Amino acid sequence: MSEAPPAGVLTVDLDAIARNFRMLADRVQPAECAAVVKADAYGLGAAEVAPALVRAECHNFFVAQLGEGVALRRTLRRVKSNATIYVLSGLMENERALFEANGLVPCLNDLGQLENWTAFCRARGQKLPCALHIDTGMNRLGLPPAELDQLADDPKRLVGVELWLIMSHLACADETDHPMNRRQLGRFRAALDRLPHCRASLAASSGIFLGREFLFNTVRPGVALYGANPTPGAPNPMAQVIRLQGRILQVRDVDRGETVGYGATHRFTRPRRIATVSVGYADGFLRSLSNRGSAAMGGVTAPIVGRVSMDLLTLDVSAAPPESARPGAMVELIGPSRSIDDVAAEAGTIPYEILTALGPRYERHYTGGAGSTE
Amino acid sequence: MSEAPPAGVLTVDLDAIARNFRMLADRVQPAECAAVVKADAYGLGAAEVAPALVRAECHNFFVAQLGEGVALRRTLRRVKSNATIYVLSGLMENERALFEANGLVPCLNDLGQLENWTAFCRARGQKLPCALHIDTGMNRLGLPPAELDQLADDPKRLVGVELWLIMSHLACADETDHPMNRRQLGRFRAALDRLPHCRASLAASSGIFLGREFLFNTVRPGVALYGANPTPGAPNPMAQVIRLQGRILQVRDVDRGETVGYGATHRFTRPRRIATVSVGYADGFLRSLSNRGSAAMGGVTAPIVGRVSMDLLTLDVSAAPPESARPGAMVELIGPSRSIDDVAAEAGTIPYEILTALGPRYERHYTGGAGSTE
Repeated sequence: MSEAPPAGVLTVDLDAIARNFRMLADRVQPAECAAVVKADAYGLGAAEVAPALVRAECHNFFVAQLGEGVALRRTLRRVKSNATIYVLSGLMENERALFEANGLVPCLNDLGQLENWTAFCRARGQKLPCALHIDTGMNRLGLPPAELDQLADDPKRLVGVELWLIMSHLACADETDHPMNRRQLGRFRAALDRLPHCRASLAASSGIFLGREFLFNTVRPGVALYGANPTPGAPNPMAQVIRLQGRILQVRDVDRGETVGYGATHRFTRPRRIATVSVGYADGFLRSLSNRGSAAMGGVTAPIVGRVSMDLLTLDVSAAPPESARPGAMVELIGPSRSIDDVAAEAGTIPYEILTALGPRYERHYTGGAGSTE
Repeated sequence: MSEAPPAGVLTVDLDAIARNFRMLADRVQPAECAAVVKADAYGLGAAEVAPALVRAECHNFFVAQLGEGVALRRTLRRVKSNATIYVLSGLMENERALFEANGLVPCLNDLGQLENWTAFCRARGQKLPCALHIDTGMNRLGLPPAELDQLADDPKRLVGVELWLIMSHLACADETDHPMNRRQLGRFRAALDRLPHCRASLAASSGIFLGREFLFNTVRPGVALYGANPTPGAPNPMAQVIRLQGRILQVRDVDRGETVGYGATHRFTRPRRIATVSVGYADGFLRSLSNRGSAAMGGVTAPIVGRVSMDLLTLDVSAAPPESARPGAMVELIGPSRSIDDVAAEAGTIPYEILTALGPRYERHYTGGAGSTE
């Protein structure tokens, strides 16, 4: 053998991502379904995920940063797609040529950025596409109310550019009854009424499920494509996408009264069998899963005992059949029997962070799509 | 310009790592100081960090996984070092040839692994080096007491291999007065008394500061090399190593009563100025820093307001001078005025996780060492 065997294996089901995309695209018709592939497709690999989405007939992508847009354009060229790429982080003065050279559409977040793009268009002698991000209460990115007023009073500020999309972003879409949802919807509609007619987009993954009035012309799902539940509290309508397995390095019997791991935080009250697995928080398996998470193996659930350490975690495998609790065997940390939503809840965070934390040491397998690497 | 400007910049001071190594090496003399560079040198880049340590006269390295050992051997060959590389995760049957081909020393964790290595040595017709990991109470890796008994009763099990090191690992070394420290020390000494004479190693970063009786022949600092405080509660004797900066994308004024970010978790009680920075939890800036962390800018501290999102965080910059609170300006998230220990405390975790979580989107600069990339 020339390669070291993997300590952990991350399997990404590209067909499941494509199915999730098509399900959402069907659901929102006649609105258009874009795909958010920022943060390297939420940690799953934009270079593999985006082509699978192209095959599912996705024509519009969103990324967070210019660098991500440049990389995605390269990927899309490779698969002969000329899909639109929107860059959410906006536009800095010195980035304009890079946007144009890569055919990227900046989501302009303030009037300064609009002026910047207008000046660039003038200098280039052509109207270049852009989106306009209106802040409706998230207070993170987008035109604040005072700038919206200025723009509405002076719409010729938009004359020099090609406005493809007016967008905003919901702060509380995962809480169906949160008053922010209706408030932001109202503000977004009011903004659209005051601006030149244009395609509009408000909903991301959870927003799609708030009602058809949230759909407008384009929806922008991200985490739902990757299998997280966009409707927390209700059954998950999405297909699971990832499976994460870790390898058992050692199995041992411990006596009553013994402790395990850093800080000796778990003390055994009776004799147990424990297994050490070669996945830790350096692999993005968050340390907050210490004494809380679990793994599936041989048809049983094996709870994490003690703290998750950098490269290792320990499971109570007393209930597991011996053939699955042996050195070299793989345990399932995320997968059919343990969703990313489950793991997120145990870690005290959201599935988005479980995904984006997935570390570089896993051997990554992609199934489905054009060709499987398994 | 052909490159996208960075959303965040991570600067790693290789000279500070080398200084930290030499300080510890001086302190522990005549014991030898090794360096732990597992998990890609705690997220800082083993390919850059290890050569800096070689120049500081480090001759012994520890990694967690075989794959890390193979990569480190390649790095060391490049800088003409034939330093020893210990692999902590142990030895699987099908890994033996890869260990030998890369001159890696397995830390054998049970008698099965010892037999496996012995059989391999016999087949190769030579004694190959190994370390023996004795579990003294961590219950994670290493020979359990029953196997130590077996080995002590039958020491000829060690005849076929070249035993370079007997090691164990402390569970509570960061708590000076924790009874586990003395208990593990006693167990380790007892184990050494029962085994053939050999170099011994017990202490990692914090263990070095527990007293000279913990030093034995070799110490194995990791996180202290990278600037974390190995003596929590006392002043940090180590030099800071990293600086993390994020770029401001937008600045806005918000009114009393408004909220910011997902879940609208922060409500302003008076008019404030906030800045949106292009670093989020996908960059390893943990979501648990929501409404808790802060940044340094223009001589003031700007608290994080609202939730950290995937690609962005928001700061209350009302107290910051306008020239430092403008789009394009960089803020300091970790650095001289905000140590990794500070950030870890705010995030409810340990500095180890702050380091290993550092994400792939940062532009990485290395200063010091053979040549600066700045």
